[in-house]
Amino acid sequence: MTVPWPSRPAQVPVLALGDVLLVTLQGELLDTAAEQLQQDIAQRVARSGATGVVIDISGVDIVDSFLGRVLAEIAANARLMAARTVLAGMRPAVAMTLVELGLTLPGLATALDVERALELLSGHPLAAVPSDPGKEDT
Amino acid sequence: MTVPWPSRPAQVPVLALGDVLLVTLQGELLDTAAEQLQQDIAQRVARSGATGVVIDISGVDIVDSFLGRVLAEIAANARLMAARTVLAGMRPAVAMTLVELGLTLPGLATALDVERALELLSGHPLAAVPSDPGKEDT
Repeated sequence: MTVPWPSRPAQVPVLALGDVLLVTLQGELLDTAAEQLQQDIAQRVARSGATGVVIDISGVDIVDSFLGRVLAEIAANARLMAARTVLAGMRPAVAMTLVELGLTLPGLATALDVERALELLSGHPLAAVPSDPGKEDT
Repeated sequence: MTVPWPSRPAQVPVLALGDVLLVTLQGELLDTAAEQLQQDIAQRVARSGATGVVIDISGVDIVDSFLGRVLAEIAANARLMAARTVLAGMRPAVAMTLVELGLTLPGLATALDVERALELLSGHPLAAVPSDPGKEDT
Protein backbone atom coordinates (compact mmCIF):
# COMPACT_ATOMS: atom_id res chain seq x y z
CA MET A 1 0.00 0.00 0.00
CA THR A 2 1.69 3.19 -1.10
CA VAL A 3 0.32 6.41 0.21
CA PRO A 4 1.87 9.82 -0.21
CA TRP A 5 3.47 10.89 3.04
CA PRO A 6 3.65 14.45 4.26
CA SER A 7 7.15 15.72 4.90
CA ARG A 8 6.64 15.20 8.61
CA PRO A 9 4.39 12.21 9.14
CA ALA A 10 1.75 12.42 11.79
CA GLN A 11 1.50 8.67 12.02
CA VAL A 12 2.57 6.69 15.05
CA PRO A 13 3.70 3.19 14.09
CA VAL A 14 1.89 0.20 15.54
CA LEU A 15 4.26 -2.73 15.99
CA ALA A 16 3.22 -6.35 16.33
CA LEU A 17 4.97 -8.53 18.92
CA GLY A 18 3.33 -11.92 18.82
CA ASP A 19 -0.25 -11.42 19.98
CA VAL A 20 0.43 -7.96 21.28
CA LEU A 21 0.48 -4.61 19.52
CA LEU A 22 3.04 -2.10 20.75
CA VAL A 23 2.76 1.64 20.33
CA THR A 24 5.47 4.01 21.48
CA LEU A 25 4.25 7.55 21.94
CA GLN A 26 6.88 10.26 21.73
CA GLY A 27 6.58 13.94 22.46
CA GLU A 28 3.24 15.50 21.72
CA LEU A 29 0.38 13.66 20.04
CA LEU A 30 -1.47 15.92 17.64
CA ASP A 31 -5.21 15.63 17.01
CA THR A 32 -4.87 14.11 13.57
CA ALA A 33 -2.23 11.65 14.72
CA ALA A 34 -4.36 10.61 17.67
CA GLU A 35 -7.36 9.94 15.47
CA GLN A 36 -5.22 8.02 12.98
CA LEU A 37 -3.67 6.02 15.81
CA GLN A 38 -7.07 5.03 17.19
CA GLN A 39 -8.14 3.82 13.76
CA ASP A 40 -4.85 2.02 13.17
CA ILE A 41 -5.00 0.17 16.46
CA ALA A 42 -8.65 -0.80 15.99
CA GLN A 43 -7.96 -2.08 12.49
CA ARG A 44 -4.82 -3.92 13.51
CA VAL A 45 -6.61 -5.59 16.43
CA ALA A 46 -9.44 -6.62 14.13
CA ARG A 47 -7.10 -7.88 11.42
CA SER A 48 -4.53 -9.65 13.55
CA GLY A 49 -6.68 -10.86 16.40
CA ALA A 50 -4.23 -9.29 18.84
CA THR A 51 -5.11 -9.99 22.44
CA GLY A 52 -3.29 -7.06 23.94
CA VAL A 53 -2.20 -3.51 23.24
CA VAL A 54 0.76 -1.94 25.02
CA ILE A 55 1.10 1.81 24.83
CA ASP A 56 4.49 3.01 25.99
CA ILE A 57 4.53 6.61 27.15
CA SER A 58 8.05 6.74 28.58
CA GLY A 59 8.84 9.31 25.92
CA VAL A 60 5.88 11.49 26.83
CA ASP A 61 6.38 14.34 29.24
CA ILE A 62 2.87 15.74 29.27
CA VAL A 63 -0.34 13.76 29.56
CA ASP A 64 -3.24 16.16 29.42
CA SER A 65 -6.98 15.54 29.37
CA PHE A 66 -6.89 15.16 25.58
CA LEU A 67 -4.30 12.40 25.64
CA GLY A 68 -6.02 10.84 28.64
CA ARG A 69 -9.23 10.65 26.63
CA VAL A 70 -7.45 9.24 23.60
CA LEU A 71 -5.86 6.53 25.72
CA ALA A 72 -9.16 5.68 27.36
CA GLU A 73 -10.86 5.45 23.98
CA ILE A 74 -8.14 3.21 22.59
CA ALA A 75 -8.55 0.92 25.58
CA ALA A 76 -12.34 0.92 25.26
CA ASN A 77 -12.14 0.15 21.54
CA ALA A 78 -9.64 -2.62 22.11
CA ARG A 79 -11.74 -4.13 24.86
CA LEU A 80 -14.77 -4.26 22.61
CA MET A 81 -12.61 -6.33 20.30
CA ALA A 82 -11.41 -8.62 23.08
CA ALA A 83 -7.97 -7.06 23.54
CA ARG A 84 -6.60 -5.67 26.77
CA THR A 85 -4.70 -2.40 26.87
CA VAL A 86 -1.79 -1.69 29.20
CA LEU A 87 -0.20 1.72 29.60
CA ALA A 88 3.53 1.35 30.18
CA GLY A 89 6.42 3.55 31.22
CA MET A 90 4.70 6.53 32.74
CA ARG A 91 7.22 8.88 34.27
CA PRO A 92 6.83 9.72 37.94
CA ALA A 93 6.41 13.40 37.19
CA VAL A 94 3.65 12.64 34.71
CA ALA A 95 1.86 10.43 37.22
CA MET A 96 2.01 13.13 39.88
CA THR A 97 0.66 15.74 37.51
CA LEU A 98 -2.17 13.45 36.46
CA VAL A 99 -3.20 12.83 40.04
CA GLU A 100 -3.06 16.54 40.79
CA LEU A 101 -5.33 17.17 37.83
CA GLY A 102 -7.69 14.41 38.93
CA LEU A 103 -6.98 12.41 35.78
CA THR A 104 -6.39 8.97 37.20
CA LEU A 105 -7.11 7.14 33.96
CA PRO A 106 -9.73 4.70 35.27
CA GLY A 107 -10.07 1.54 33.25
CA LEU A 108 -6.48 1.62 32.03
CA ALA A 109 -4.12 -1.04 33.34
CA THR A 110 -0.60 0.20 33.92
CA ALA A 111 2.86 -1.33 34.07
CA LEU A 112 6.22 0.13 34.95
CA ASP A 113 7.73 -0.70 31.59
CA VAL A 114 6.97 -2.52 28.35
CA GLU A 115 8.49 -5.76 29.57
CA ARG A 116 6.22 -5.86 32.59
CA ALA A 117 3.27 -4.89 30.42
CA LEU A 118 3.92 -7.86 28.14
CA GLU A 119 4.20 -10.14 31.16
CA LEU A 120 0.94 -8.75 32.48
CA LEU A 121 -0.77 -9.48 29.18
CA SER A 122 0.69 -12.95 29.02
CA GLY A 123 -0.87 -13.68 32.38
CA HIS A 124 2.07 -13.65 34.75
CA PRO A 125 0.56 -12.95 38.15
CA LEU A 126 3.39 -10.83 39.50
CA ALA A 127 4.03 -9.01 36.29
CA ALA A 128 3.00 -5.45 36.78
CA VAL A 129 2.89 -4.35 40.34
CA PRO A 130 3.64 -0.64 40.33
CA SER A 131 4.89 -0.72 43.89
CA ASP A 132 7.54 -3.30 43.01
CA PRO A 133 10.72 -1.99 44.68
CA GLY A 134 13.14 -0.49 42.23
CA LYS A 135 14.36 -3.31 40.09
CA GLU A 136 17.03 -2.38 37.57
CA ASP A 137 16.00 -3.03 34.02
CA THR A 138 17.48 -6.35 33.10
CA MET B 1 16.54 11.49 37.42
CA THR B 2 14.40 14.56 37.04
CA VAL B 3 15.45 16.88 34.32
CA PRO B 4 13.47 19.81 33.02
CA TRP B 5 11.93 18.80 29.73
CA PRO B 6 11.47 21.15 26.85
CA SER B 7 7.93 21.43 25.60
CA ARG B 8 8.80 18.98 22.86
CA PRO B 9 11.25 16.41 24.21
CA ALA B 10 14.12 15.38 22.00
CA GLN B 11 14.52 12.02 23.67
CA VAL B 12 13.67 8.78 21.95
CA PRO B 13 12.73 6.07 24.46
CA VAL B 14 14.74 2.87 24.55
CA LEU B 15 12.55 -0.07 25.56
CA ALA B 16 13.82 -3.36 26.97
CA LEU B 17 12.25 -6.61 25.72
CA GLY B 18 14.08 -9.44 27.36
CA ASP B 19 17.65 -9.33 26.05
CA VAL B 20 16.79 -6.93 23.29
CA LEU B 21 16.49 -3.16 23.26
CA LEU B 22 13.81 -1.69 21.04
CA VAL B 23 13.87 1.83 19.67
CA THR B 24 11.04 3.22 17.56
CA LEU B 25 12.06 6.19 15.48
CA GLN B 26 9.27 8.51 14.43
CA GLY B 27 9.34 11.43 12.04
CA GLU B 28 12.57 13.35 11.94
CA LEU B 29 15.50 12.69 14.24
CA LEU B 30 17.19 15.92 15.27
CA ASP B 31 20.93 16.18 15.91
CA THR B 32 20.63 16.44 19.66
CA ALA B 33 18.14 13.59 19.84
CA ALA B 34 20.40 11.41 17.70
CA GLU B 35 23.39 12.03 19.95
CA GLN B 36 21.33 11.38 23.05
CA LEU B 37 19.95 8.19 21.52
CA GLN B 38 23.42 6.87 20.73
CA GLN B 39 24.50 7.49 24.31
CA ASP B 40 21.33 5.98 25.71
CA ILE B 41 21.64 2.81 23.68
CA ALA B 42 25.33 2.38 24.51
CA GLN B 43 24.66 2.88 28.21
CA ARG B 44 21.67 0.58 28.20
CA VAL B 45 23.59 -2.15 26.40
CA ALA B 46 26.45 -1.81 28.86
CA ARG B 47 24.16 -1.80 31.88
CA SER B 48 21.76 -4.52 30.86
CA GLY B 49 24.00 -6.77 28.84
CA ALA B 50 21.48 -6.68 26.00
CA THR B 51 22.46 -8.95 23.13
CA GLY B 52 20.47 -7.17 20.48
CA VAL B 53 19.17 -3.77 19.44
CA VAL B 54 16.16 -3.41 17.17
CA ILE B 55 15.59 -0.03 15.58
CA ASP B 56 12.15 0.27 14.05
CA ILE B 57 11.91 2.90 11.32
CA SER B 58 8.42 2.13 10.05
CA GLY B 59 7.45 5.61 11.21
CA VAL B 60 10.29 7.26 9.34
CA ASP B 61 9.66 8.61 5.87
CA ILE B 62 13.09 10.03 5.14
CA VAL B 63 16.42 8.34 5.79
CA ASP B 64 19.18 10.69 4.74
CA SER B 65 22.94 10.40 5.04
CA PHE B 66 22.81 11.84 8.56
CA LEU B 67 20.38 9.24 9.82
CA GLY B 68 22.25 6.55 7.90
CA ARG B 69 25.42 7.51 9.72
CA VAL B 70 23.67 7.58 13.09
CA LEU B 71 22.27 4.10 12.49
CA ALA B 72 25.67 2.79 11.41
CA GLU B 73 27.30 4.28 14.50
CA ILE B 74 24.70 2.80 16.79
CA ALA B 75 25.30 -0.61 15.21
CA ALA B 76 29.08 -0.22 15.47
CA ASN B 77 28.86 0.83 19.12
CA ALA B 78 26.54 -2.04 19.93
CA ARG B 79 28.77 -4.55 18.19
CA LEU B 80 31.76 -3.41 20.21
CA MET B 81 29.68 -4.28 23.23
CA ALA B 82 28.65 -7.66 21.86
CA ALA B 83 25.15 -6.70 20.78
CA ARG B 84 23.73 -7.07 17.29
CA THR B 85 21.65 -4.36 15.69
CA VAL B 86 18.75 -4.99 13.33
CA LEU B 87 16.97 -2.27 11.39
CA ALA B 88 13.28 -3.10 11.11
CA GLY B 89 10.29 -1.83 9.20
CA MET B 90 11.86 0.18 6.43
CA ARG B 91 9.23 1.37 4.00
CA PRO B 92 9.63 0.42 0.37
CA ALA B 93 9.83 4.05 -0.68
CA VAL B 94 12.58 4.70 1.82
CA ALA B 95 14.54 1.70 0.62
CA MET B 96 14.27 2.81 -2.99
CA THR B 97 15.42 6.31 -2.15
CA LEU B 98 18.38 4.96 -0.19
CA VAL B 99 19.50 2.79 -3.06
CA GLU B 100 19.16 5.70 -5.46
CA LEU B 101 21.35 7.78 -3.18
CA GLY B 102 23.88 4.96 -2.88
CA LEU B 103 23.23 4.64 0.86
CA THR B 104 22.91 0.88 1.24
CA LEU B 105 23.65 0.85 4.96
CA PRO B 106 26.45 -1.74 4.94
CA GLY B 107 26.90 -3.58 8.20
CA LEU B 108 23.29 -3.13 9.24
CA ALA B 109 21.11 -6.22 9.32
CA THR B 110 17.53 -5.62 8.29
CA ALA B 111 14.19 -7.26 8.91
CA LEU B 112 10.75 -6.60 7.51
CA ASP B 113 9.24 -5.83 10.89
CA VAL B 114 10.04 -5.87 14.58
CA GLU B 115 8.75 -9.37 15.05
CA ARG B 116 11.07 -10.75 12.39
CA ALA B 117 13.93 -8.70 13.82
CA LEU B 118 13.41 -10.29 17.22
CA GLU B 119 13.33 -13.72 15.60
CA LEU B 120 16.54 -12.92 13.77
CA LEU B 121 18.23 -11.92 17.01
CA SER B 122 16.96 -15.03 18.76
CA GLY B 123 18.59 -17.13 16.09
CA HIS B 124 15.72 -18.35 13.95
CA PRO B 125 17.26 -19.26 10.63
CA LEU B 126 14.45 -18.06 8.39
CA ALA B 127 13.80 -14.85 10.19
CA ALA B 128 15.45 -12.23 8.04
CA VAL B 129 18.20 -11.65 5.58
CA PRO B 130 21.09 -9.48 6.66
CA SER B 131 21.41 -6.77 4.05
CA ASP B 132 25.09 -7.42 3.47
CA PRO B 133 26.17 -10.39 5.52
CA GLY B 134 29.89 -10.41 4.85
CA LYS B 135 30.58 -6.75 4.76
CA GLU B 136 31.86 -5.00 7.87
CA ASP B 137 32.03 -1.26 8.12
CA THR B 138 35.68 -0.90 8.90
